[in-house]
Amino acid sequence: MGEHIRNLRPSVSNLAAPLVEDLVAKAGVLRLDVTRSPCGARLVDAGINARGGMEAGRRIAEICLGGLGSVGIASGGRFARWADMITVTTADPVLACLGSQYAGWSLAEGDFFALGSGPARALWAKETLFEELGYRDRADEACLVLEVDRLPPDTLVARIAQDCGVDPERLTLILTPTSSLAGTVQIVARVLEVALHKTHALHFPLERVVDGIGSSPLPPPAPDFVSAMGRTNDATLYGGNVQLFVEGPESEARELAEGLPSSSSRDHGRTFAEIFTAYNGDFYAMDPMLFSPARVTVTALETGRSFTFGAFHEDILERSFA
Amino acid sequence: MGEHIRNLRPSVSNLAAPLVEDLVAKAGVLRLDVTRSPCGARLVDAGINARGGMEAGRRIAEICLGGLGSVGIASGGRFARWADMITVTTADPVLACLGSQYAGWSLAEGDFFALGSGPARALWAKETLFEELGYRDRADEACLVLEVDRLPPDTLVARIAQDCGVDPERLTLILTPTSSLAGTVQIVARVLEVALHKTHALHFPLERVVDGIGSSPLPPPAPDFVSAMGRTNDATLYGGNVQLFVEGPESEARELAEGLPSSSSRDHGRTFAEIFTAYNGDFYAMDPMLFSPARVTVTALETGRSFTFGAFHEDILERSFA
Amino acid sequence: MGEHIRNLRPSVSNLAAPLVEDLVAKAGVLRLDVTRSPCGARLVDAGINARGGMEAGRRIAEICLGGLGSVGIASGGRFARWADMITVTTADPVLACLGSQYAGWSLAEGDFFALGSGPARALWAKETLFEELGYRDRADEACLVLEVDRLPPDTLVARIAQDCGVDPERLTLILTPTSSLAGTVQIVARVLEVALHKTHALHFPLERVVDGIGSSPLPPPAPDFVSAMGRTNDATLYGGNVQLFVEGPESEARELAEGLPSSSSRDHGRTFAEIFTAYNGDFYAMDPMLFSPARVTVTALETGRSFTFGAFHEDILERSFA
Repeated sequence: MGEHIRNLRPSVSNLAAPLVEDLVAKAGVLRLDVTRSPCGARLVDAGINARGGMEAGRRIAEICLGGLGSVGIASGGRFARWADMITVTTADPVLACLGSQYAGWSLAEGDFFALGSGPARALWAKETLFEELGYRDRADEACLVLEVDRLPPDTLVARIAQDCGVDPERLTLILTPTSSLAGTVQIVARVLEVALHKTHALHFPLERVVDGIGSSPLPPPAPDFVSAMGRTNDATLYGGNVQLFVEGPESEARELAEGLPSSSSRDHGRTFAEIFTAYNGDFYAMDPMLFSPARVTVTALETGRSFTFGAFHEDILERSFA
Repeated sequence: MGEHIRNLRPSVSNLAAPLVEDLVAKAGVLRLDVTRSPCGARLVDAGINARGGMEAGRRIAEICLGGLGSVGIASGGRFARWADMITVTTADPVLACLGSQYAGWSLAEGDFFALGSGPARALWAKETLFEELGYRDRADEACLVLEVDRLPPDTLVARIAQDCGVDPERLTLILTPTSSLAGTVQIVARVLEVALHKTHALHFPLERVVDGIGSSPLPPPAPDFVSAMGRTNDATLYGGNVQLFVEGPESEARELAEGLPSSSSRDHGRTFAEIFTAYNGDFYAMDPMLFSPARVTVTALETGRSFTFGAFHEDILERSFA
Repeated sequence: MGEHIRNLRPSVSNLAAPLVEDLVAKAGVLRLDVTRSPCGARLVDAGINARGGMEAGRRIAEICLGGLGSVGIASGGRFARWADMITVTTADPVLACLGSQYAGWSLAEGDFFALGSGPARALWAKETLFEELGYRDRADEACLVLEVDRLPPDTLVARIAQDCGVDPERLTLILTPTSSLAGTVQIVARVLEVALHKTHALHFPLERVVDGIGSSPLPPPAPDFVSAMGRTNDATLYGGNVQLFVEGPESEARELAEGLPSSSSRDHGRTFAEIFTAYNGDFYAMDPMLFSPARVTVTALETGRSFTFGAFHEDILERSFA
């Protein structure tokens, strides 16, 4: 998309900024620790030393969505034992999920490694995904979410601010360990993003995705990293549901629906932890096409027909969560 | 009801006004086109040339409810395939649904025809329903929702402003085609209103309806008008649930519960499109008593007893939605 | 906990104050009657002479939670007939539910008796529970919720203000009869609080409860006090679900999960009204351990294992609600 459209599009950093300020203002209530790094950036600990909680995670998820989405928690009826579900809706799914929420900014320094997610990604905008989205943001405030269990080195923090074109004082980094309650909620709230990312991997044109809704059961956190990562993934892989509404030929909507669910992957049928162990802990040996919701419905807006593929697997959830 | 009570009642236009301003302020985010008509009225396109989306539709539904109601989207458990449900709650169901949301203002000029819904209806207040509600609103800002797929003629726009007693510059018309995502959501969000309208048609005194909740599955939009209208109706007719709380004798609550569900109609059992075709496309040949939720529970507050009639029909939803 | 931690903790009265002001500002919309008692305190009638409604009850429940919680109403899938469910989430469950929401302030004068709940409790803070919570609040505005069907004597009102250390003009009492719609919602919204109170009764250390979610079906109100109290209790006892996340040894989490559900009580299996009648209307003869959710899952954060005990009983709900 050209410069014209780009300029008309919302700023995910500006939309998220009031949510970030509210999170910090309510830090005591949400049981978060807010400190300043040596270079002056604001660090929000949502589960390293701080307790955090599910409500903190829910708000962090809405920040991750660039202020363009809502994450709700309600008792649903999909699974007997894991009754509490999250539902994700957005005003613009591709921009909210891929332009902001996707954990696409690879950050490394020394032995510290993290994938940055959230609105600041679009300020840096060096990921190839942004070229395809035709989107780049400009703002005075930046916020990035890191799924880590320790503080990032300050030189890295300063570099992030520089890459975003903001003063370090105006950068907020939110830290959510995978094993924390806040981390669990904000990861599971990626159920729609995961479907859109796979939509992209399947080469379906993103500009044809008009809308979407995702839902997923809330898994209990696990103290060790592999189990925690496993459960948050399994929630989506075996319990997640996504409905997409797309433009273009019905046949391509059908093809997308068939390709999207986790069942289309060779690794489907075992828990994340089981697969990870089978590959001797080599994450990159796992089929990347596994990472998608259990069930997907794609509606072709051109004809109004809907295609549903995949299925829920309560038994695998049980093995993973309990 | 007399002048005394009328004056004490809330202004649906004033309550909706901040929601309308927020919708317009977030037009870019919600993918709406906002323009001015020749006479100066604000036109919000939510699906003609604009993309709109479900979140836009959800907000428009809350505007339609005169700022008195909430429309939520969450994954429920009623239907296996159509998992995403809307739930409608209000602070005052009769005023919100019949005093504002009901599409009761018949607007015609040349070959343009539309039914106006939303808070501006109570400014005009010439529908006989308003006499029975004993309600009439006065406000400086007016907002009307039209379920149309083209812009209204400007002479009609000017006339609406005049009928509402506001400057055209202070009139907002929100346009939601039946086939659009925003249209789909705002129509399905009428599940409680449909029950209250039939309550009125069954001559149950509206002042005895104290409260209510409605829920309905979200159907996929359809590109042709009849299918689109069919699906949004079938969502309610075969998937909608309403709970009402009423005053007065238990026997009358029971009678109301028995009369309310769509199953009480001679046309029940086929999809809207099938019935419409059977009547050769003559909408007015269809039984008006068909238009009501699949299942209704009425609680008699006087005795505390509840009466449930009707049933969900997932097979008919499947035929209609897929 | 010591003075240091106490000072850092949020003020439930200050957090609830804007919600109280909004409730009063929207009194007309929410169908509440707001008056001043002779001593100057604000009385909000939510169901004695006023109509009130479920939305009023939902907001009152959030006030009761000291501004630390959310109460949502959505159609769930747990029970076929009683489809509408409430879900309670909080930023800090022990503080929200036990420090504010629990009806622990015993208020009596002449033949008037009530249990006060809500944020003002922590201003008085003379209940022994507050010693164990190590929490005491200070604020200029006080709000207490009374589950009563008549106005409290004014000398009692003045005494409450004095006990809270506020001017009577800055005290708000919200009155919700058990039989009212608002009362029904605000009682059922105690499903998580009930679980936490029993957690305390079972001597599980409260500081180890990190987070929780509760959900419960919405019962229809009943006009007589025993049925009304019975239904709101049965909603939790036979339809409520709670998920807790706790610190400490796995074995203690398991023990807690086994002890928590209502099924662990000798009185389980009959409706509240049936048990109450069997004890000749002597509430204090009933097993206090009965008052807990039907089903509870406790996750031991230390190991990540979850323990689920108890079960839902739709047949008993049917007997109670219908």
